[in-house]
Amino acid sequence: MAATAAFPAGRRADRSEPSFPPPSIGARPIDRSAWIEAYRTVRAETERRAAPLSPEDQQIQSMEDASPTKWHRAHVTWFFEQFLLAEHLPGYAIHDQRLHYLFNSYYVAAGPRQPRTQRGLITRPTCAEVAAYRAHVDRAVEALIAEASEAALGRILPILEIGLFHEQQHQELLWTDILHAFAQNPLDPVYDAGWRMPAASNAKGTVTLQRGIAAVGYDGEGFSYDNESPRHDCLILPVRLDRALVRNRDWLAFMEDGGYARQDLWLSDGWYAAQAQGWEAPGYWRRQGEGGWHQSSLAGARPVDPDAPVTHISYYEADAYARWAGRVLPTEFEWEVAALNGDLPDAYGLVWQWTRSAYLAYPGYRPLPGALGEYNGKFMSNQFVLRGSSVATPDGHARPTYRNFFYPHQRWQFTGLRLAEPLS
Amino acid sequence: MAATAAFPAGRRADRSEPSFPPPSIGARPIDRSAWIEAYRTVRAETERRAAPLSPEDQQIQSMEDASPTKWHRAHVTWFFEQFLLAEHLPGYAIHDQRLHYLFNSYYVAAGPRQPRTQRGLITRPTCAEVAAYRAHVDRAVEALIAEASEAALGRILPILEIGLFHEQQHQELLWTDILHAFAQNPLDPVYDAGWRMPAASNAKGTVTLQRGIAAVGYDGEGFSYDNESPRHDCLILPVRLDRALVRNRDWLAFMEDGGYARQDLWLSDGWYAAQAQGWEAPGYWRRQGEGGWHQSSLAGARPVDPDAPVTHISYYEADAYARWAGRVLPTEFEWEVAALNGDLPDAYGLVWQWTRSAYLAYPGYRPLPGALGEYNGKFMSNQFVLRGSSVATPDGHARPTYRNFFYPHQRWQFTGLRLAEPLS
Amino acid sequence: MAATAAFPAGRRADRSEPSFPPPSIGARPIDRSAWIEAYRTVRAETERRAAPLSPEDQQIQSMEDASPTKWHRAHVTWFFEQFLLAEHLPGYAIHDQRLHYLFNSYYVAAGPRQPRTQRGLITRPTCAEVAAYRAHVDRAVEALIAEASEAALGRILPILEIGLFHEQQHQELLWTDILHAFAQNPLDPVYDAGWRMPAASNAKGTVTLQRGIAAVGYDGEGFSYDNESPRHDCLILPVRLDRALVRNRDWLAFMEDGGYARQDLWLSDGWYAAQAQGWEAPGYWRRQGEGGWHQSSLAGARPVDPDAPVTHISYYEADAYARWAGRVLPTEFEWEVAALNGDLPDAYGLVWQWTRSAYLAYPGYRPLPGALGEYNGKFMSNQFVLRGSSVATPDGHARPTYRNFFYPHQRWQFTGLRLAEPLS
Amino acid sequence: MAATAAFPAGRRADRSEPSFPPPSIGARPIDRSAWIEAYRTVRAETERRAAPLSPEDQQIQSMEDASPTKWHRAHVTWFFEQFLLAEHLPGYAIHDQRLHYLFNSYYVAAGPRQPRTQRGLITRPTCAEVAAYRAHVDRAVEALIAEASEAALGRILPILEIGLFHEQQHQELLWTDILHAFAQNPLDPVYDAGWRMPAASNAKGTVTLQRGIAAVGYDGEGFSYDNESPRHDCLILPVRLDRALVRNRDWLAFMEDGGYARQDLWLSDGWYAAQAQGWEAPGYWRRQGEGGWHQSSLAGARPVDPDAPVTHISYYEADAYARWAGRVLPTEFEWEVAALNGDLPDAYGLVWQWTRSAYLAYPGYRPLPGALGEYNGKFMSNQFVLRGSSVATPDGHARPTYRNFFYPHQRWQFTGLRLAEPLS
Repeated sequence: MAATAAFPAGRRADRSEPSFPPPSIGARPIDRSAWIEAYRTVRAETERRAAPLSPEDQQIQSMEDASPTKWHRAHVTWFFEQFLLAEHLPGYAIHDQRLHYLFNSYYVAAGPRQPRTQRGLITRPTCAEVAAYRAHVDRAVEALIAEASEAALGRILPILEIGLFHEQQHQELLWTDILHAFAQNPLDPVYDAGWRMPAASNAKGTVTLQRGIAAVGYDGEGFSYDNESPRHDCLILPVRLDRALVRNRDWLAFMEDGGYARQDLWLSDGWYAAQAQGWEAPGYWRRQGEGGWHQSSLAGARPVDPDAPVTHISYYEADAYARWAGRVLPTEFEWEVAALNGDLPDAYGLVWQWTRSAYLAYPGYRPLPGALGEYNGKFMSNQFVLRGSSVATPDGHARPTYRNFFYPHQRWQFTGLRLAEPLS
Repeated sequence: MAATAAFPAGRRADRSEPSFPPPSIGARPIDRSAWIEAYRTVRAETERRAAPLSPEDQQIQSMEDASPTKWHRAHVTWFFEQFLLAEHLPGYAIHDQRLHYLFNSYYVAAGPRQPRTQRGLITRPTCAEVAAYRAHVDRAVEALIAEASEAALGRILPILEIGLFHEQQHQELLWTDILHAFAQNPLDPVYDAGWRMPAASNAKGTVTLQRGIAAVGYDGEGFSYDNESPRHDCLILPVRLDRALVRNRDWLAFMEDGGYARQDLWLSDGWYAAQAQGWEAPGYWRRQGEGGWHQSSLAGARPVDPDAPVTHISYYEADAYARWAGRVLPTEFEWEVAALNGDLPDAYGLVWQWTRSAYLAYPGYRPLPGALGEYNGKFMSNQFVLRGSSVATPDGHARPTYRNFFYPHQRWQFTGLRLAEPLS
Repeated sequence: MAATAAFPAGRRADRSEPSFPPPSIGARPIDRSAWIEAYRTVRAETERRAAPLSPEDQQIQSMEDASPTKWHRAHVTWFFEQFLLAEHLPGYAIHDQRLHYLFNSYYVAAGPRQPRTQRGLITRPTCAEVAAYRAHVDRAVEALIAEASEAALGRILPILEIGLFHEQQHQELLWTDILHAFAQNPLDPVYDAGWRMPAASNAKGTVTLQRGIAAVGYDGEGFSYDNESPRHDCLILPVRLDRALVRNRDWLAFMEDGGYARQDLWLSDGWYAAQAQGWEAPGYWRRQGEGGWHQSSLAGARPVDPDAPVTHISYYEADAYARWAGRVLPTEFEWEVAALNGDLPDAYGLVWQWTRSAYLAYPGYRPLPGALGEYNGKFMSNQFVLRGSSVATPDGHARPTYRNFFYPHQRWQFTGLRLAEPLS
Repeated sequence: MAATAAFPAGRRADRSEPSFPPPSIGARPIDRSAWIEAYRTVRAETERRAAPLSPEDQQIQSMEDASPTKWHRAHVTWFFEQFLLAEHLPGYAIHDQRLHYLFNSYYVAAGPRQPRTQRGLITRPTCAEVAAYRAHVDRAVEALIAEASEAALGRILPILEIGLFHEQQHQELLWTDILHAFAQNPLDPVYDAGWRMPAASNAKGTVTLQRGIAAVGYDGEGFSYDNESPRHDCLILPVRLDRALVRNRDWLAFMEDGGYARQDLWLSDGWYAAQAQGWEAPGYWRRQGEGGWHQSSLAGARPVDPDAPVTHISYYEADAYARWAGRVLPTEFEWEVAALNGDLPDAYGLVWQWTRSAYLAYPGYRPLPGALGEYNGKFMSNQFVLRGSSVATPDGHARPTYRNFFYPHQRWQFTGLRLAEPLS
């Protein structure tokens, strides 16, 4: 089975000429205009997501795990300036060297940086100044793509490409972070009154995997992160995966059966997290008088839709739910193989799906050289893998081998689950 | 000696017709236009102080003790709406009831409120919406003053008056809070490039108090807080107070003599605070290469001026300095008597002066009735009294009996000291 | 009025020849045998208090504020070795130099020491080894007293004397610390089945102080701590003090009236402490089914006696109770003057009485020279003064000028209160 | 390959008739005396390990992860009383019902329990009383084994067996916990002056695993924990494992090369743990003047032996070391297969070996029914697997399928590592 067989295409079916992802970096001749278009597409999407937000909205960091909108806009720009322009555009004038301290995220090799927990303290540069920074870098990047020699482009495109995927990741975070910020406000701010979780399919039943050796991990020609490699064989044991995601109506049954009160259903660490945080429902759920549960969303607080996939749940909750249901979460490889087999509805575009796989290195894993080697590898402990993509994931970003990862207590992402059942 | 004898007047010498403080609330006939002018003066000063700040600047809360500029602007407005308009203006339409939760500070009797540490999370209402809130309340308050019956004004003016002094206190906090916020930013933002600490006098020598019974506390006709009453006698023992404030040059001598490293100079709690916070100089001081020390100020980081009074020091530091110098801090009553005697230079308008008096109730103290009773009384433990006023204190706010109070570890206010020496 | 007028004598009425306190250090000729007897008396009392405790009991530190019994026994011994023997007994052989690190409490000038919070981690030396340490030092101290020259004794006796009072303070702590430890054990261990809080007097009514200048602080010939000096004048304003202590029956009325639930009764810091600790009754009280409240005591958990003085309350609770009762706590000087006037029943031997005076230096206060200067002076912030003495205070330790001090949240001591009322 | 092929036998080679492990629980006829002997052997070993410890030593809990010796002795006894005697010995009289609260560890289904972090606060029962508790339970267990019907024994022996293995686990903890406690004491207590880490073999070179399907997990007739099941197939990819453990001399080279200072070598969570804890060497290492490094051991502080396997290292350190060496840790299945192949020197009896496998459920894993189901399953997040056994592991306890697990920051166990290298 080829890694590209079941590439998620549905989310862009309405577009005749997708500008993202860009061409393969190995394709010759190099289509400079396609790259410029891809760059513009991604950069414009960031601004489109930030547009409904006031300067006040863009300023705040509502918890350690989140970052200000303004910071996201500046950080992805710094990424291009630091790794692309400063190294590959001769004579490039750094926009403002002091911003490098402020907008480096965690690249130790790229120098000291503003403490992660204090990103919300930086009121200047203002949003307008960040916009100017973005424009400055945009002009330079586009000039670089247009004017670099073919030989130089061979070095430039891999960095440009990772920069674009990197910015897309921050587009997703921008949404989940502002949702968290708004959810702290008793006035229930609305980001987009028309926002809705897309409808889940009516998929029923299961997809069965037979015992067999399967190759997992990426080896196509498009982009992938280092943590998806090397492609390697693994042994799949017989298993059935649900075609449907777990929905809010299912979760309400779990809640009504005491799911949040029965310690026997929970991992020990999960139970303590649940008690410490006072969890009694998924993230952002609030009891709303007699009207039942509401959940904060990008459209403000709205009644919980029983048909929608459950979201904003931690790994601990997903695991407890599976135990309650007498099932398990799939492994990341079971998920990947099922997705490549082509019959895993709602794999993409709704909610990331927790797997029971810890986030670890593939056999023979090598991080990228230099500072970019810190991108993924140094996080390989204490986290779990999620697969698929969510409603917040930008077009062209998902693929079957994609490994998202979060700590098991985190739930501000659009996280959900599907169940599985071993057959042996 | 009368409580008004040495009323601090210098800071407004350049104004022919001061509009603040307003007339005595007992004065008849009631001068409505003077009250409206006082109201406008105070409200305008708040806006003047906020004006140089972007929406981003106004949004953040850089530590627990500080509040966002936007919050200050809204909170003082809520104070008038809650305590004045809602109770005394028949038919008044609350601007937005939801704001009462957000902008109540600590008045338990006035209902539940946004947790103090989470004021920075509220991005909406925006600054513009807060401006609209202020305008709505301003119109109503001015109409109330203009149109209320004389009898009603008798009840209204005491609340209006405390609301104005209350707003002035927040004007001072607005400055100290934004200074703290800016000091966290490595880009060293400037609030007002022309800002300077006023020059201290060249006062030398001491003022001596003889043993005697002195009346302390307020009993004049103007405004005072409940914690300045009742006026009562106390016994002053012979003491000398320095006429000069301690200056940066003095403090540098203390530092060079190991002041921050000699545990024997420090209170036990002070030493632990100093270690935990890594103090080795006053607040906002940073070593600037060979150029010596700089201190963040409202004009950005500037070289430490050896002639300026030391500021941004905690009680613990003031106490350690005094011990190092073989002296003590004055008591609050020694300070008050010396100030009333009329020969205490730099008592006002530069830095608040730590005293060695714990902040406690005067004999027979009664808090105001109702929610306003929480204004001062419930903080009477673990804090020390400061006397005088600072460069950030608005015109007309200071008086000899005024009791400011902060925890001994706090140093983001414009706090300084003068020394004293018992003579017995 | 003389500082010795109302010296508390009741607690030792049953003893014909008290051996403590020792003779005045100025008395000549020096009565060596009286000093030796005083030394033996104090040392024996420590062992008497430790005797019912197993090695396991003596090992633990049940909270930061407490210390292990074994540590108390060793620390008071170190005090004599460090300050007396090492400096004044030529040729004295230190028992084990390594113990100085372990058993120095907080004397910075005496060298580094085991962190206070980790005293419970030291299992060796064992209790038996600490007993040997005590015996070694006892032999040397007694020899020193017996054999030193008169001139040397002039230097020795002041240190010996403070060492004895110091050990008595630890005798009180030994009891309060083991009570805290036992109260953590659901098996409710009993220290002494026959232990009882002595009965309070049937005192009723009030004692009135007239306005006047009073001298406060110690100036007699016996022992006093540096913080009781210098004796100085203060102005007493008219006030009435209750002759009776507040009793458990009074406290139950406060509880039944919602005392622990009415935030308006509490200092702000007190309210947060009460919420954080879940206070709903005095320390060690537990609801015992239908049988009402029990309180852990040195005799184990016993029904709360409505006639007994309330104890194990914090300053915050005492202050809230006084506010509820429409009264205040006395100042430490009001208490002292009333006690010296001779008509303050239950001043000693039951519970320490919180005053509303912050613990601060007297005018002209000078700490002792050298390391012993750290004894009292460095704690003069954030604490309140208690006066009198408690059931746990050893014979001969109390006096009218004695200033005990604790943080306002602490309640593991035998702390109680009496009320006062200003008359002006 | 059979799970019993390479059963670790070396550690008991000097004993002619091992009494542990006991017979297979399925063996018929049931050899009651062998079971009684096994029981006595295990129980005696606990007492043997506790014997050098004073009551003071046995009392303390030196950190959250550790427990007092006395608690271990009582807890394993409670385990037999709770799960064996109370359920299977008709008419059994509980020794003291109150002990069940004190000595339940984490079995929620078995009722409420003393908070884990407060085990050190329980001074009573004393050590002597715990000894009486042990004797009481021993008599009853032995009588039960001797007198139960064959049918009853069928139900009893599985519980007896897990109770014995359970007690052995606590024997290992007893040593590692007291080592931690002693290491906090600057007096460097000695548990056993003759204690030594056994000499490692002189093994060199590597053992190579070829690609293939291997069965892992337990399926023999002896005892195993639920987390070793079900036995299942996995795919082994070509890999080489070092025959030798990493030694102190290797680790010193890592340290000298800046291993603890180079953030690029570390997992992100690991780096923060290392900074927060101030790690600059393995656990219990201290610089000892010019004499180089010493390490606290059960024989007190001793010079680090360059030939001994490194121990008291966290997963984070093991991982950083492997990265520095250009290698990886083996997976738990690579380790198991290599051990079963029979050529993995020093697999047992020196140090547990960190693997790069997260501690997760095997496919189809089912915990034991009832309270014992909490034994292993609820810890399956955030931990890593260690394989082998250590110098502290009791005889008869280790096997190739055994899965030990700890959090990646923990290092008070006898933890070490061996390296591996993927070959594909």
